[in-house]
Amino acid sequence: MSSNVPSEPGTIMSGEMAEQPSVLRRILDEGGPAIREVAERIAAKNPRFVLLTARGTSDNAALYAKYLLEIQLGKPCGLTSMSTTTAYGAQQDLTDCLVITISQSGGSPDLVASTKAAREAGAVTLAVTNNADSPLAQVSEFHIDVLAGPEKALPATKTYTAELLALYLFVDGLRGGRGAEAAKALPEVADAVLARKGEVKALASRYRFAERMVLTSRGYGYPTVKEAALKLMETSYIPALSYSGADLLHGPLAMVDNISPVIAVVADGKGGEALQPVLERLRDRGADLVVIGCQEEVDRASAGFALPTDGLPEELQPIVQILPLQMLAYEVTMARGQDPDAPRSLAKVTETR
Amino acid sequence: MSSNVPSEPGTIMSGEMAEQPSVLRRILDEGGPAIREVAERIAAKNPRFVLLTARGTSDNAALYAKYLLEIQLGKPCGLTSMSTTTAYGAQQDLTDCLVITISQSGGSPDLVASTKAAREAGAVTLAVTNNADSPLAQVSEFHIDVLAGPEKALPATKTYTAELLALYLFVDGLRGGRGAEAAKALPEVADAVLARKGEVKALASRYRFAERMVLTSRGYGYPTVKEAALKLMETSYIPALSYSGADLLHGPLAMVDNISPVIAVVADGKGGEALQPVLERLRDRGADLVVIGCQEEVDRASAGFALPTDGLPEELQPIVQILPLQMLAYEVTMARGQDPDAPRSLAKVTETR
Repeated sequence: MSSNVPSEPGTIMSGEMAEQPSVLRRILDEGGPAIREVAERIAAKNPRFVLLTARGTSDNAALYAKYLLEIQLGKPCGLTSMSTTTAYGAQQDLTDCLVITISQSGGSPDLVASTKAAREAGAVTLAVTNNADSPLAQVSEFHIDVLAGPEKALPATKTYTAELLALYLFVDGLRGGRGAEAAKALPEVADAVLARKGEVKALASRYRFAERMVLTSRGYGYPTVKEAALKLMETSYIPALSYSGADLLHGPLAMVDNISPVIAVVADGKGGEALQPVLERLRDRGADLVVIGCQEEVDRASAGFALPTDGLPEELQPIVQILPLQMLAYEVTMARGQDPDAPRSLAKVTETR
Repeated sequence: MSSNVPSEPGTIMSGEMAEQPSVLRRILDEGGPAIREVAERIAAKNPRFVLLTARGTSDNAALYAKYLLEIQLGKPCGLTSMSTTTAYGAQQDLTDCLVITISQSGGSPDLVASTKAAREAGAVTLAVTNNADSPLAQVSEFHIDVLAGPEKALPATKTYTAELLALYLFVDGLRGGRGAEAAKALPEVADAVLARKGEVKALASRYRFAERMVLTSRGYGYPTVKEAALKLMETSYIPALSYSGADLLHGPLAMVDNISPVIAVVADGKGGEALQPVLERLRDRGADLVVIGCQEEVDRASAGFALPTDGLPEELQPIVQILPLQMLAYEVTMARGQDPDAPRSLAKVTETR
């Protein structure tokens, strides 16, 4: 069979989703020491502020890192508005700043340009990519390779969870490496979740004819719902809106009710607790509420997917939470007769300037 | 007539939209000196990093301020993830940080708590509110009153443009007050835009049966499309997705084509130039593209609303850009037989914690 024969719809994406446990294991086993070394060298420079630069899926990984850096290290953080540099030529003083740029390919010209500008403006620069030979890795003072192997499906899956784990290990390294032990459970938990295809397929039938979706969470789970919304949109084209639980109450709640199904990611921890008033309000209003979280929360919802996160610290749960949502995007798209491997009009490396 | 008799649908929102030119005039005439004084006192403290805290409509005003601060002052900025403080109790070192909290009511407990925590963590704190007696104004070291008068409609309109102008004058004051002269044209331009109801009504017919919308812009215009999407959602319940032009190419473009109409805000300036590749791609794909921007760009699109922004610096255009989009949200909602004054389930002061 020639390699030009197109594969069956969805086989590339499902293959890459299935690789996630082994990618996580590879990062833990092979990537750890290099990440720790980068973290130690950057910690020695004692940056006071952190800016995170990324687009698309990697931007959701950046938001995850923002929570880690703020909560665990107490560092004030910001997500970069890249056009301030690339379109407006802003001249910033980035002394004492760490600028982390995250990109699967490391190839987008605007990321390279803004990282270069940040370095010239006095920042410590760190690139987190899946390609150590990329222009971004080369222009940056430090580099972390997320070791996910080539990603061919247009919707990023294994590089997202790889970025999350690499960023977790990096932040853990910055604060002296006290918690990486807990991460060792991840590959096995990921395996267990990915095996539950039947459950996700059943959930997917709920959304086959949905014309919109609302996703919500708080804290560490918020990047998860942003990434899940992106995945749903770029594969199934369902307009999926994601909000922090607090923001949902400030306006978009009007859209929920019987109009829109809701998926809530409820972490086992403080983020899940902070989401309780939102869940109560949604239940009171009779919303169709699917919960991704612990069994107890799933039982109180319309339906859901219980995550085996017992003993997994809340800050590691996002690496597991996204898995059933990636699978959901895949299954909804397949049910609609579309090909999740190749959404219309997407290029794998997006060259924005 | 008793004051309990409900008014006709939409009269409160349309009345408040119509007040915008006089609110802008009031800020310029009466608010200017106080804002300049606050700016001078804060400039003397020379903050190196700025964090902006807000929710809903005010969060879009915060994003506008982020562009101003980064481009015009070269200050690295971040938008606060409030739950890191309120849910996780993060202990941050905010020495050298200016924390700006923006809220119409100044009443939401989480904003008060996070501002208090920021002040205790060493930050210079500034509250920007429409209520000088609010708990937020009181807990903050500095306060700017946006002078918009009581806002009764649930969708915020006049407080948004008031926040934008107050923040513009504040940032202008921080850098020594060189550009406020240009702002004097705003009330008259706003008057001229608000008078063109017929044009907006014609555009609204386009969206009466729309089941989704995509909005895009870049740079200073990006907060405008985020705010327009929020307005559309909270009044008409249409799922409206907003993206920076660069992010649109990283995934959600798959959703556009014939599935979703697109509204692009094209600034007369660098943000508009940076959006050109996105507009080209949308035109090539035959997307239904409505442009809010200069006449030339409107002429190249499927339809649009030409803004009279000749001579208005790009950084002031957002105060004008949002007006036809507020009107559009209003007209689409009225055309659908709903009441834009009172979207379901929204409280004017949202008490998130």
